[in-house]
Amino acid sequence: MVLTLDSGLDKPLYAQIRDQIRERILSGALKVGDRLEPSRELAKRLGVHRTTIGNAYADLEAEGLIVGTVGRGTFVSPLAAHLQARKAHSRRANNLFWEGFLTEGPRDDSLARLLSSAFEPGVISFAMTRSSEELSPVDLVRRVTDAVWRREGAKLLQYGSTDGYAPLKQFLQSRLGRDGIFTEECESLITSGCQQSLDLVRRSLLSPGDTVACENPTYTGLWNLLQSTGIRMIAVPVGAEGLDLDYLEAALERNKVKLILCCPTFHNPTGHTMPLAARKRLLEIARRAQVPVVEDDIYGALRYRGRELPPLKVLDTSGMVIYVNSFSKVGFPGLRVGWMVAAPRVIECLRWTKQSADLHTNLLAQAVLEELGRRGWLDQLIRRTRKAYAQKLGLLLECIRRCFPPEARVVEPEGGMSVWVELPEDVDAAELLTRARDRGVIFAPGRYFYFQDVRHNALRLCFTSLTNEQIEQGAAVLGEVLKEGIQQVRRTDRKRRAAAGVALV
Amino acid sequence: MVLTLDSGLDKPLYAQIRDQIRERILSGALKVGDRLEPSRELAKRLGVHRTTIGNAYADLEAEGLIVGTVGRGTFVSPLAAHLQARKAHSRRANNLFWEGFLTEGPRDDSLARLLSSAFEPGVISFAMTRSSEELSPVDLVRRVTDAVWRREGAKLLQYGSTDGYAPLKQFLQSRLGRDGIFTEECESLITSGCQQSLDLVRRSLLSPGDTVACENPTYTGLWNLLQSTGIRMIAVPVGAEGLDLDYLEAALERNKVKLILCCPTFHNPTGHTMPLAARKRLLEIARRAQVPVVEDDIYGALRYRGRELPPLKVLDTSGMVIYVNSFSKVGFPGLRVGWMVAAPRVIECLRWTKQSADLHTNLLAQAVLEELGRRGWLDQLIRRTRKAYAQKLGLLLECIRRCFPPEARVVEPEGGMSVWVELPEDVDAAELLTRARDRGVIFAPGRYFYFQDVRHNALRLCFTSLTNEQIEQGAAVLGEVLKEGIQQVRRTDRKRRAAAGVALV
Repeated sequence: MVLTLDSGLDKPLYAQIRDQIRERILSGALKVGDRLEPSRELAKRLGVHRTTIGNAYADLEAEGLIVGTVGRGTFVSPLAAHLQARKAHSRRANNLFWEGFLTEGPRDDSLARLLSSAFEPGVISFAMTRSSEELSPVDLVRRVTDAVWRREGAKLLQYGSTDGYAPLKQFLQSRLGRDGIFTEECESLITSGCQQSLDLVRRSLLSPGDTVACENPTYTGLWNLLQSTGIRMIAVPVGAEGLDLDYLEAALERNKVKLILCCPTFHNPTGHTMPLAARKRLLEIARRAQVPVVEDDIYGALRYRGRELPPLKVLDTSGMVIYVNSFSKVGFPGLRVGWMVAAPRVIECLRWTKQSADLHTNLLAQAVLEELGRRGWLDQLIRRTRKAYAQKLGLLLECIRRCFPPEARVVEPEGGMSVWVELPEDVDAAELLTRARDRGVIFAPGRYFYFQDVRHNALRLCFTSLTNEQIEQGAAVLGEVLKEGIQQVRRTDRKRRAAAGVALV
Repeated sequence: MVLTLDSGLDKPLYAQIRDQIRERILSGALKVGDRLEPSRELAKRLGVHRTTIGNAYADLEAEGLIVGTVGRGTFVSPLAAHLQARKAHSRRANNLFWEGFLTEGPRDDSLARLLSSAFEPGVISFAMTRSSEELSPVDLVRRVTDAVWRREGAKLLQYGSTDGYAPLKQFLQSRLGRDGIFTEECESLITSGCQQSLDLVRRSLLSPGDTVACENPTYTGLWNLLQSTGIRMIAVPVGAEGLDLDYLEAALERNKVKLILCCPTFHNPTGHTMPLAARKRLLEIARRAQVPVVEDDIYGALRYRGRELPPLKVLDTSGMVIYVNSFSKVGFPGLRVGWMVAAPRVIECLRWTKQSADLHTNLLAQAVLEELGRRGWLDQLIRRTRKAYAQKLGLLLECIRRCFPPEARVVEPEGGMSVWVELPEDVDAAELLTRARDRGVIFAPGRYFYFQDVRHNALRLCFTSLTNEQIEQGAAVLGEVLKEGIQQVRRTDRKRRAAAGVALV
């Protein structure tokens, strides 16, 4: 029996021996009745003290895996066979058991599988709103990280406050003030990104069976969260001016709505932005109906053209807006840091919920972002990112004009990370995806963003993580795929019409 | 009007001007009818182009805050008064609104307030299970962080996988194998610490109204989580051998229990450890009742004496144990990284839930821990930590023997971060805390760990974050406080008995 011992490990030698023998027994490599090497011999062979082997054997005997008989030696016990058999069957039995136990069946992971091909070599992916790795500020971040470790490393390794790392909160507060959100009347909370912020809202303010009003289409992470937790969602259509407010108003009259959730600036996935007048009307509607509004401003910093608009929270004089933002879209998704701003009583509630959810957000990432901010580097990075993304967006729109068929209707956004393309009614973007993927290009079919009245004839193209070359090549491939797809639908239509004509005769 | 402009900011100048003027108007510094400086003059004074001021004024006019009259100038609008008034009252109205909206009232934060005094200068805190800052491996971690930024910084800033950073998963899997947990039959998931792992279990496997069996007393974070989400908890007493298994068995017969939650090694707060025979019996009970077991092994690596025991997961041949652990107690709480091991079907479910909860755990912390592990430094750190904590525990026990009154019954743990002290029935540890705090020493009264049948006469003393000097001084103060407390209770008793005697006559 080959045993590997490593005295450098944080584990006593006897335990290493015991666990390796146990594994041999349970895996069936050692069978019932097999004789174990006498402890004296094994000790000599391994170069360890005999007590070490004695301790290992004693534990295995206590577990019932081996039995010792005076004068005869130590053997794998009959119980081991039982355990082996149970273990061999356990995976099946186990899965059966859990299948009955878990309330939710296996989920449809087709989107996840689709997105995973984004990482295959050579694939040009318009699928996800990822940051540009060309622009990745690794060097600055590395220097800043070193500085924060040196300054207060021991503190950053220690437990932190659920509320957030105080210097980051201060930095954000002055930044919020600069943007017109004053924290005398509201408070802030650091979270592990916007997804967590939305989840905390769901946990603190909603119960299963409650109804919310949401943009349809919307961010998949939002509707997955709400649907999987039993929240009823009213699908409010999104037009060029954002949420359809007439629709919303009527929906609030007819339903007991607990919350309105929206992304008024560079809406994901359509890219639409709500104009000032619509923002004011939305707040008035919400105030009259006494329904709080959750404003997701995650793309807000990425404006490339047009006039800057105040977030709803700036216009919110009745304190009913819960504002959500993060560092993910300006270059730091992997750090998982976001923030929320809301009335003090709401933040108090969300803070308790966050304490139950994960105690606090990791301190290192918070300190790194604060240091970047305080040195003025964050603003520099955001400016540089915005400039680069504006150029990429311009290039993509130009390529689309050149390569896409005229039937493809493109929504030109003023900011954000993606372009929304609408195709003729009968074209299914998911089918086009299969073809595009065969030619090394992927995107997100629009259907994944609809939680109701699913439309199949749209696609979302994210441009931020691609190089100029990839944008040009990718758009050219997509143009061909779109043209073919539209032609095919036309042919099928003609045939169907012809067939229908025959039938009618 | 003093306006501060900063061209280094990531915000156009016109927006800086607009937002500062808006703030003046909404705060009431500018009143209705006040005339704004003509744009030409203001532009000259600020040294900006006149269009910049024009843009700022245009936005404010669109928001309804100012009005321009040809030939007369620009004035704060009457609407501003309305908004000012609304804003002034908003905080009150707002709080009233939210009070009605939020289902949960303000929480009792007495424990939080108590613990906050732990950070006042000079206070010796036995209150929390914090790591030693003397031992904090800042330098090693700093070097490792630098290496991971250099190696794959751009990747670490990017979005990661919900499942966890693959190299860390591999590292943990080989480590789990070394400990006898084989991942052919189970899978792992990286989480943002044990609190999140417990929360994911709660979300994926439990619904409000479900019943679980837990140790009583137990970790406050666990019972806060369960109680605040409507889970019914059966209080299983904890003795020298851990969970009272006879009690548990009877409880499983009488109740429809969905899960058993326990911390079999160095139980928090009592420090008790379940012996091997009890572990096996627990698993047998669970298997027969077909109730899964959640094993919290967060203190498992901190054994100072006695024989190492296999986690339940090692003995689990039927795949019903969900194993939970983290890097928090071996020196890295601020990084918020933990892991879970369970049957593949369970992990799949938990992974979806985690995706809705926070997308993924921050990559930087995961990469740092993996690099520490791969270099062998993690094992070195754990060994060093264990040695230091063993010494601190020894010192605390010695001081307790010397300073505490004989009525204080001390549970001497074989590992972990704290010592549990039981006092005579009538002594309320929370009252003693008030006295101790006046003398600069704090601890956690036992009552906070009971979710049922609350006992007031115990206290938990954590020793890991204190220096030897602090342990000696702190124990001396506590010894006096305990003696006084016990004497006072005796005096009151005698008086009460005397008074009772008088009344009887």
